[in-house]
Amino acid sequence: MKVIDLDTYKIQIGDFWKEIQLKKYSSIFVLADQNTKEHCLPIFENNISNLDFHLIEIQSGEIHKNIETCQFIWSEMVKNGADRKSCMINLGGGVIGDMGGFTASTFYRGMDFIQIPTTLLSQVDASIGGKLGIDFMNLKNAVGLFKNPSQVCVSADFLKTLSIREIRSGFAELIKHGLIASKDDWIELQNIKKISEVTDWEKYIIPSLEIKKSVVHKDPFEMGLRKSLNFGHTIGHAIESHALSNGISLLHGEAVAIGLICESFLSHKVVGLSAQSLDKISTYIINHYGKYKLKKSNFSTYLHLMTKDKKNENQIINFTMISEIGTIILNQTANNSLIQESLEYYISL
Amino acid sequence: MKVIDLDTYKIQIGDFWKEIQLKKYSSIFVLADQNTKEHCLPIFENNISNLDFHLIEIQSGEIHKNIETCQFIWSEMVKNGADRKSCMINLGGGVIGDMGGFTASTFYRGMDFIQIPTTLLSQVDASIGGKLGIDFMNLKNAVGLFKNPSQVCVSADFLKTLSIREIRSGFAELIKHGLIASKDDWIELQNIKKISEVTDWEKYIIPSLEIKKSVVHKDPFEMGLRKSLNFGHTIGHAIESHALSNGISLLHGEAVAIGLICESFLSHKVVGLSAQSLDKISTYIINHYGKYKLKKSNFSTYLHLMTKDKKNENQIINFTMISEIGTIILNQTANNSLIQESLEYYISL
Repeated sequence: MKVIDLDTYKIQIGDFWKEIQLKKYSSIFVLADQNTKEHCLPIFENNISNLDFHLIEIQSGEIHKNIETCQFIWSEMVKNGADRKSCMINLGGGVIGDMGGFTASTFYRGMDFIQIPTTLLSQVDASIGGKLGIDFMNLKNAVGLFKNPSQVCVSADFLKTLSIREIRSGFAELIKHGLIASKDDWIELQNIKKISEVTDWEKYIIPSLEIKKSVVHKDPFEMGLRKSLNFGHTIGHAIESHALSNGISLLHGEAVAIGLICESFLSHKVVGLSAQSLDKISTYIINHYGKYKLKKSNFSTYLHLMTKDKKNENQIINFTMISEIGTIILNQTANNSLIQESLEYYISL
Repeated sequence: MKVIDLDTYKIQIGDFWKEIQLKKYSSIFVLADQNTKEHCLPIFENNISNLDFHLIEIQSGEIHKNIETCQFIWSEMVKNGADRKSCMINLGGGVIGDMGGFTASTFYRGMDFIQIPTTLLSQVDASIGGKLGIDFMNLKNAVGLFKNPSQVCVSADFLKTLSIREIRSGFAELIKHGLIASKDDWIELQNIKKISEVTDWEKYIIPSLEIKKSVVHKDPFEMGLRKSLNFGHTIGHAIESHALSNGISLLHGEAVAIGLICESFLSHKVVGLSAQSLDKISTYIINHYGKYKLKKSNFSTYLHLMTKDKKNENQIINFTMISEIGTIILNQTANNSLIQESLEYYISL
């Protein structure tokens, strides 16, 4: 088992089951969705036997990451006698971790929670940083807070329960971490010709977590450096929000993959990322993800959604850019016509 | 102007208007309810001229301190372009401060907020401690978090806008602070024969805030000592929750006043508070508050509500008691029949 030590908690990667500390709690709640109840809860129960817990089951999907589901979770906690010394174990992907962490952190002004991320995306992204929240008015994570879990447990065993599409969604964050912080990691990723053929995921997860740890450690509340993790996400979130509110099936990482291409284009135009690097990035991503049908008629909606991004100040759209692979430049801006050009560049690929 | 310095912010008491720091914010929101819009906003606007702000107006009363009102507040913030560098000024009593602080602390994972408490209760109680939240399923503050404001501004000018009933409600916290921490303050309070005749409220507010500061400083997250502030509140909250859900008009402090008598009775039975002190406390409170009609048929409901109090662990009802005036004993328990006896004692007065 590999351990990544953070200031107030540890991430345990591998065979962590004996390390989960539950004895001190007055009661245990496990939050799962329809999918993780079916596919991940059996793994959980096989490894932690004789645990007395209340299961809270919610519907799967980002569309349910809202205040109504929080009300359901809080009410289940009240009905089952949760108190401040209870603990919530969040067994699932980003939606479960973000919303379970948010409801636990706000229940009776805060009880402990343990994250067991079961998707590649949540393992490399949500494990570090304490960002919790829900969507509101079609805005991603518009309501939430920063609070660290008591413990994070990462096992590649859960990845076997995922579709290739879900794995690919998480893979976008691995790409991002390479692009913003490590040319070596990026080069390592070039060896992956087909995502479905990767077997030893921990080899990629651990360096990716180390990058995120280093960034978050220097800027826990997203006042500066941590914005680098936003690379690909300003445009990606807008495309994701639009898809979400129009019933289009698009996973977070699939949207981020598009955002990475568009924001690499902006980086080329604004901070001098070379044409060759831009081309390499675009080719690699399109090879793995294929093309999403961006419509010009939606461009104004995307722009409108970008102005609502919570990293903005004074309604100016904030971008993180890269001047070369592994080197970020914070707090860049691009005007609407350049942003549109980046979307057109994606269409032209 | 008197200043009470806390770890991360200051309470300014008196003529604080020139001390409010607003220039650094991208936009200002003022949260008020129907009452404070009418009575307090003019005072605010007279003292801070030329301030460009968005007013968010909500309905008055504890019954609106719920997740639906939060959704309204968050949506007003989204619609009016709030970002993380915006600031929320909460102009009102405890409901406004608790809910405005909660919505601000969770908007885009946290923006600044300034408390301008306008009731005696919120000035002496909510000014210190960073306890924010809303009611949920008839449970007081069941959803919330701990977060300090950027600044707290207390002016006795606002108290002139209150009814005597509201003043009396806040007065219960002054009594409580004396009972748990300062015999001298308690003796000082004996000089008040009629609450309506007090003119110099700052004389009572400042020592009361100093008591709360000292308690909260030693225990910011309510793990131990801070439970002393709960004196009178375990039973008080239950009576208040019951009244709230049955449409009975009972202010927080009026319920706490009842709770102070009942929990002094428990203190007499469990930790040896003298019969003489119990009698003095009961007489003083009944003199100022009169008698509330407690019905025996509601006792089981009160007990049920007490088991849901968030200070409990393992569903055992937690009480703070006093062995003499000014001396607390934490983490006491009382069985159901003794709690019922305390309610009967109140009825017998």
